[in-house]
Formats: sequence, structure tokens, C-alpha cells
Amino acid sequence: MEKKKVTIKDVAKYAQVSPATVSQILNGQAKRFDPKTVARVRQAKEDLGYEANYLARKMVGKQSMMIGILVPDITNPFFNTLVKGIEEVLFQAGFIAILGNGGFDGAKEEQCLFEFAQHGVDGFIIASPSISDKALQTVLTAKKRPYLVLDQKAPDGQSDALLLDDRAGGRLAAEYLAKKGHKKVALVVPKVLPANLKRRMQGFLEYYPEALVLTTEFSKAGGKASVPKLLTTKVSAVFALNDELAFGIYRGLAEHGKQVGSDLSVVGYDNVEMCEYVTPALTTIKQPLTLLGKTAAKLILARLKEPTSAYQQVMLPVELIERASVIQNN
Amino acid sequence: MEKKKVTIKDVAKYAQVSPATVSQILNGQAKRFDPKTVARVRQAKEDLGYEANYLARKMVGKQSMMIGILVPDITNPFFNTLVKGIEEVLFQAGFIAILGNGGFDGAKEEQCLFEFAQHGVDGFIIASPSISDKALQTVLTAKKRPYLVLDQKAPDGQSDALLLDDRAGGRLAAEYLAKKGHKKVALVVPKVLPANLKRRMQGFLEYYPEALVLTTEFSKAGGKASVPKLLTTKVSAVFALNDELAFGIYRGLAEHGKQVGSDLSVVGYDNVEMCEYVTPALTTIKQPLTLLGKTAAKLILARLKEPTSAYQQVMLPVELIERASVIQNN
Repeated sequence: MEKKKVTIKDVAKYAQVSPATVSQILNGQAKRFDPKTVARVRQAKEDLGYEANYLARKMVGKQSMMIGILVPDITNPFFNTLVKGIEEVLFQAGFIAILGNGGFDGAKEEQCLFEFAQHGVDGFIIASPSISDKALQTVLTAKKRPYLVLDQKAPDGQSDALLLDDRAGGRLAAEYLAKKGHKKVALVVPKVLPANLKRRMQGFLEYYPEALVLTTEFSKAGGKASVPKLLTTKVSAVFALNDELAFGIYRGLAEHGKQVGSDLSVVGYDNVEMCEYVTPALTTIKQPLTLLGKTAAKLILARLKEPTSAYQQVMLPVELIERASVIQNN
Repeated sequence: MEKKKVTIKDVAKYAQVSPATVSQILNGQAKRFDPKTVARVRQAKEDLGYEANYLARKMVGKQSMMIGILVPDITNPFFNTLVKGIEEVLFQAGFIAILGNGGFDGAKEEQCLFEFAQHGVDGFIIASPSISDKALQTVLTAKKRPYLVLDQKAPDGQSDALLLDDRAGGRLAAEYLAKKGHKKVALVVPKVLPANLKRRMQGFLEYYPEALVLTTEFSKAGGKASVPKLLTTKVSAVFALNDELAFGIYRGLAEHGKQVGSDLSVVGYDNVEMCEYVTPALTTIKQPLTLLGKTAAKLILARLKEPTSAYQQVMLPVELIERASVIQNN
């Protein structure tokens, strides 16, 4: 004979109380009730072998044990490496990760945050440049759930913030190119610059104020499209604001019969795994992406434990990884 | 003066009923109650401006509007492109995506499914080779929630299944190499072969029964590590079971001063974006990854609407994308 699942109603009936009373007694609110009632409910639970329903516990408890994560593009190695780090820490802490892929669409991003809130997430990790401060405030602070803005978004002083040291990264790239004897250099940057990329560019331009700045789409295709223009200039080296742009430049140069290095030195940004596999291997600025994700998850979990502590701003360092895409220029 | 959030308890007190009664009346169960009670609760809701709590609705309603997605590695382009497609369709249907990254760890995968179930997901999309049938049955069928196994896992006849035509893909690669005059060929494959990769290999070996089979780690590093061995053989072409392996072979050949094409022709599998950006561009078997994700989401949503319809098995086609990594062999 198949055993039927014991429900909260069965326990309630057995103990002669309401299901709501059972729910509260079994979820840490026992002191509100007559000790005799509490004893009866606990006995009923034992006798029937009842396992408390998770959703019922959530209703009475304070936490849903869910964190909403909003990224613009999960296929970008930056964001999926980040999400991997976040998920790992959340999972270890017994939380699950809800994923929203904004697709650089402000309306969808706002709707994602709203849906996350409707589903009762305990907190939000937002790694998206295009969400507006207004959307953040309306959706998040109104619901009084903590959030963490991550890298792409300038901190607004109403949340914890986690940043990478983009300005230092830009400067590291510049110093390295200067050390290698490059005098005329270019920057390849996206048309729309979120705060982190602005800092990255600023760090580079402080060192090379006369660098040529080319704007393009922020993708491999965009990097490739910048090559014809680059080849009409006299620059000996280019700083691509991310590795994807750099891979596009590699391909564009190959299609013009040019060599990365001897014809044009290239520095990327991010240190995605592919950097080691292109030829020549790509010199780049390493962002600690897995650490970024883990730190983000730890910050939001810490915030849940201490909701009223002062907001933190954490800055993670970057470093230059020297490979073979920059040659000495004399 | 700050306005305090109206809770279900406030509504209950105002209407002189229990919170459970309020919850049920506001969540489609009004007909169970005396019409006067219903009217009083609805009036209380209006008067107090109460917004129903989502978790309360979930307790009473049938759906959580959440789907759990389990992948082994979100940083692999195959899986993140898939997840992007899934998320897009779920979002449009008002569902949110819960993500578990199994990391090829069977225990973690099982725990992920358990957590998803505890959080009340309506269904599961499982794209993981290592989850055992037992884990699937225990965690999923016991909870009576529909699931969809995806590509990596052989269908077990207790769920919908979505497959890519891996055998045809293996055969397409073989036919193409034969057409290009390659007689001695190798396969580079991972040590542990999930069902889809077995079919892929089988399709190739049906055409080239004497192909050399080299096993390695299923990653770029594994592809690179296979190169010294490949160079000791007389093969003129190699079929890598995914693009990541192929990129590793590219790098390994470069480190040995060899050229892809003239020294060794290479065919990959997946058609990730990077195929167009390596030099020479990689000829590969295109898997419709975004379509795979979208179809997976549609199947699980259809199953939620029609829980008792017969299980479906859907097979998506693959195609060869000819680029420049295979030369004519004479």
C-alpha cells in the first residue's frame, strides 16, 4: 500500500488546532502559544511523521533562502565566471541563485528585479550597467531588501558596492606599453561607457593623454570592425577594453594579412581562459572574476545577517598578465 | 511620517478572521467561505491597501512560477548559450530561472535538485551527464514535478527529452573529411563519455572505423595536451568532439611550430562564437544552442499545462559549418 504524504492539515486536525498554528509552532514561534498546545502539536508531528513544508516555513520565517542575480549577458565570460563564483558561495550557505539575463534591455532588467522581489528573494546582486537609479530605488528600497551593485554600476550610497580597480588596470596597461617602447598607441572602446570602463579608460589616458580613441561595438565583431581604421594610423600598439575586443582585433589583423605583435601589439582586459589559447597568447589585465563572484555572495550574505551595519565598498585589485602579444618597439 | 507596510495579519484583524482565511480568500479559494466573510476580507484589503504576499499566494496556489535549471559548467559556452535561451522563454512566460552549477560533482547536482524541490520549483531542466537515474527518481518523481533531460543524458522514459542529433553530427564531420581526401584521421575525445558524445563518436566511427581515438581531458587544456601524441602519428586530420578541444589543439600546434590546415586539419563541434575568430577560422558542427534552450523551456512549460500528456522526445538537427581549418589532402 502506498503511503500518503502527511500534510500540515493532517497535523492540525490530529492536534485539534488550525494549520496556521501548526505552522507557527513548528517554525520557531512556539512561545506565542499555550505550552499545552505546543506539546500537542509536537506530538502530532512525531506521531504522523510530518515533515514541515518549505513554503510554509518561508511564510513564517524571515528568509526565502534565494538571491536574485541580474547580469546583462550570461554568454560573456566575464559574467558567467562571476555567476559561477556567486553560485558556489550561495550554495554552500544553503541559498539558491535566481538568474536574470537582462540582455542590455533596461525594461527587462527592471522587470527581472520586480519578478525577483515578487518571488521573495532575500537579496539582489546586480551586475548591470543600464539599470537606472530610479529603477533600483523603486523596486528595491521600496521592498526593503538588500542589494549589491557590482562593478558595472557606480555605487549610489544606498547599498554595499563591490568594485574592481579599473583605473589601476588602465594605468597598468599604459605603463607596460610605455616600458615596451610604444609611443603612439590607440584605445578601442565601446560607444557607451559604463562607469567601470570610464575608469579603465581614464587610467590609461592619464598616462597616454594623446592616445587615439576608437569607438566600436563592445564585442568580438566590434574589435574586428576597428581594424581597418587602426591600420590607417601610425599606432604600434592598441589597448582593447576587454578580451573579446582583442580577439576581434586578432581576427581583423589576420584577415588583412597582418601579425599580432610584429604589426600591432595588443593588450586586452579580463584574462578570460581563451587568452592562453590564441596565438600569440594575449597579454591582458587580469580581473579576479571568480573572487569577484564569491566576494559578492559573501557581502550580500553578511548584509542579511547584519542588515543595519554601515554600507561597505570593497575594491578588488587587478594585475597585468604578460604573454606574447606585445613586442618591444624601438 | 513613514507608512508602515500592511501585513496579512492587519487585514485578518480588521476583518476579524484568521490570516489563513485571508490568504485563501485572496488566492482564489473564496468559494469555500461564507460570502459575508469573503466580502469583509475584500473590503479590509481595499481599506488597508493590502498587497497580497507572493509566498502566501504560492502556498495556496498551484505554481511557484519558478523552473530549476541544472548545468555542469556555466562558463562553458555550450551551457551558457543554452541557459540564455531557456531564460528568455521562461521570462516571457512570467517564470523565473533558478540556476544550479553542478561542477561535474554528482553529490552537488543531487543536492541542487533537492534544493530546487524544497524551494518549490514547478519543473526542472537538467543538462548534466553525471546525475544518476536513481537521483533523478528519488528527488524528482517522488516530488511529482515534471523534468526535462537535455542532450547530455539518455532519456529514461519518465520525462520529456530533448536531444541533438549527435550521430548525424559525427557522420557529417566524417563525410566532410573524406570528401577533402583525408584517409588517416584521429578523434580526440574525453575519457568519460556521456551518451551524447558516445553517439557523436559512433557516427564518426561508422564512417572511419579505423580512426585513431585519443582520450584526454574535456577542455582546451585537454586538447592542447593531445597534440604531442597527434604529431607522432600519420593522421592528416582530427575531429575534436567539441570546439574547446579544437582550440586547445590550435594552441598545441602553434607551440610546436605547426600550422592548422597545412600540418593538421581540424574539425570542431558546437559552433561557439570563437570559431569565427581563431585563425584559420574553425570548421565545425553547428548545434542550435539558443534554439535548444528555447525548446527546452517551451517543452517544460507545455508539460506544466498538460501534465498527463504522453512524454515527448524531440531531436534537433545539426549542420556542418565550413570555414578554413580543413585543407584538401592528396
